[in-house]
Amino acid sequence: MRTIGIRELEDIALGATLLGAGGGGDPYIGKLMAMSAIKQHGPVNLIDPDDVPDDAFVVPFAMMGAPTVLQEKGINGGEFQRLYDIVSTFYGKKIYGLMPMEAGGFNSMFPFAAAAKLGLPLVDADGMGRAFPELQMVTFTIGGVSATPMGLTDEKGNSAIFKTITNKWTEELARAVTLSCGGAVSVTLYCMDGKTVKTYGVKKIVTRSEALGKAIRNVKQQEGVPEENFLAASEGYKLFRGKISDILREVKGAFNFGKAVLEGIGEYKGQTAAVEFQNENLVATVNGTIRATTPDLICLVDTETFIPVPTDAIKYGKRVLVVGLKCYETWRLPQGIELVGPRYFGYDTDYIPVEIRSKGGV
Amino acid sequence: MRTIGIRELEDIALGATLLGAGGGGDPYIGKLMAMSAIKQHGPVNLIDPDDVPDDAFVVPFAMMGAPTVLQEKGINGGEFQRLYDIVSTFYGKKIYGLMPMEAGGFNSMFPFAAAAKLGLPLVDADGMGRAFPELQMVTFTIGGVSATPMGLTDEKGNSAIFKTITNKWTEELARAVTLSCGGAVSVTLYCMDGKTVKTYGVKKIVTRSEALGKAIRNVKQQEGVPEENFLAASEGYKLFRGKISDILREVKGAFNFGKAVLEGIGEYKGQTAAVEFQNENLVATVNGTIRATTPDLICLVDTETFIPVPTDAIKYGKRVLVVGLKCYETWRLPQGIELVGPRYFGYDTDYIPVEIRSKGGV
Repeated sequence: MRTIGIRELEDIALGATLLGAGGGGDPYIGKLMAMSAIKQHGPVNLIDPDDVPDDAFVVPFAMMGAPTVLQEKGINGGEFQRLYDIVSTFYGKKIYGLMPMEAGGFNSMFPFAAAAKLGLPLVDADGMGRAFPELQMVTFTIGGVSATPMGLTDEKGNSAIFKTITNKWTEELARAVTLSCGGAVSVTLYCMDGKTVKTYGVKKIVTRSEALGKAIRNVKQQEGVPEENFLAASEGYKLFRGKISDILREVKGAFNFGKAVLEGIGEYKGQTAAVEFQNENLVATVNGTIRATTPDLICLVDTETFIPVPTDAIKYGKRVLVVGLKCYETWRLPQGIELVGPRYFGYDTDYIPVEIRSKGGV
Repeated sequence: MRTIGIRELEDIALGATLLGAGGGGDPYIGKLMAMSAIKQHGPVNLIDPDDVPDDAFVVPFAMMGAPTVLQEKGINGGEFQRLYDIVSTFYGKKIYGLMPMEAGGFNSMFPFAAAAKLGLPLVDADGMGRAFPELQMVTFTIGGVSATPMGLTDEKGNSAIFKTITNKWTEELARAVTLSCGGAVSVTLYCMDGKTVKTYGVKKIVTRSEALGKAIRNVKQQEGVPEENFLAASEGYKLFRGKISDILREVKGAFNFGKAVLEGIGEYKGQTAAVEFQNENLVATVNGTIRATTPDLICLVDTETFIPVPTDAIKYGKRVLVVGLKCYETWRLPQGIELVGPRYFGYDTDYIPVEIRSKGGV
């Protein structure tokens, strides 16, 4: 167990935004919220998942909805207690600790704000090792864990509890309510015991985010070429470098859908690339050829600062490096590809790992 | 208290379909369901609301959604027990009896099926005295009663519980889930004590439905002109007699929207009328002049049999009598008009009682 204060949050937010693969929300808003909660209630204890007792009751907290909406709508603070009350009423169990559900600028910070406010520790694990747009897209679904009973509440004070026959149905019903509540809500789902966290969770994701954040911050202080330092630190595969020449966006069904078009710069001059997303980046194409697909992470970072650029921050003229990161190993299993592979999102292509795609091998 | 068996159900279904004012679902499906439950589990005890103890816990059961969908989708029978379990878990109170929420072909029968199956009595009251399309449209809303905690379940086994800041928000969220579940679901809402039932409920609605049903059945056995007998028995105001010349329908947001156009017959030859609906009939126009609006009941009945014709059964060529019935007195209060008057549904006209409108007074 170690303590997470305001200093650590900075790096965690930065690193998690990279792992958000374009989604997971705005790091700025999330960070402010977590920092303010820690200032008021004190630092949060981060627990190694291997130290969680098998029968401990672990409760994930997250925000659900379109990142652009989440950023403007925010929360009012009463959500944490309402979700806590729902879980207490429905399970009647003592909560051992909270847990994030995904990595991302907002959803890595939201559980810290909740943990600080509720005086609970946070378990260093999640269900994605990145961010994904739909709630059934977690390693726990592959492990047969139910997303429900799931609690949901909005900033106005409305709340709902779902119990569904599959996690895909949870997504369906909770998404409909999210949309009705204005496009973004606070949720708790996949409440589970410590043994399940250890068996199916993506362990040490907060620690990994923090290390990544620290590395990004130090890229320019190090010897050598900053871009090479960044790629080494992130274990990233370089896919493209270019200037955003067009950005198409649509908010549909409480998701941000869109496509960014890039014109090459530097050694990519004269070439073009495109990145399509549903909250998170799904497919990256260079000169018409796919160079990376979900579940591998497709990340855009600033060419100068290497700070990650979430899909909601993509702007015309911005210069970005497009990198691919290997996804968590479970996602590469057949059940993983079925749940979050390119075909699920409507792309008529097989999943080929980014380490092959990025080198032009298909 | 008296016992309702299969014989009584026939009349109740027939009368309630008239009170459904075009909505409340198909009487045939509902009747079959209630009859089958009574055959299997025995008759249902119907309790006069004035005999319900003040602190007794009364639980309304209904189906929510588009009548056309409800008719095709039906239920699978597990819904009653799931709703019962939700209420028991959430309130931890012993259920005294069930109650209908509205009058209508389906929703007057559904609570009988549930009561028979669960072995509970049914309280002879509801919250509308007719049918309305949205769930906040009950006399209990005027009495400040909360629709939530509300339970919802579909035939597949998914369920949800809502707790909202207003009854309009309950409608909003539950409607979104209804739509996601395929357009029709089983619900329990406005769980309340006996005192509230007695203070705000529309009392003896089942008994009134039964009497109306019996009267409709006897219209042609009586002396005199059948149409006059029908109008006398139903206390109806004759608005038009005609042949359906066009019917427009749209299923939108788990509602049936539409408009029936009529060509006059008999003394109305050469004249035209139109009836617009959202599940229930909302406005009746004769030769371009409004002759009745919600919350008064606008009912279509067969010109020969006087059997009510719900909106989902309107067909080209069908000959119908259009009648207006006075709504329950609470709906004529300013708070009632605000909740269910013509302006709520987007009609730019004041509410004028059917006894004035129907005579041409405006």
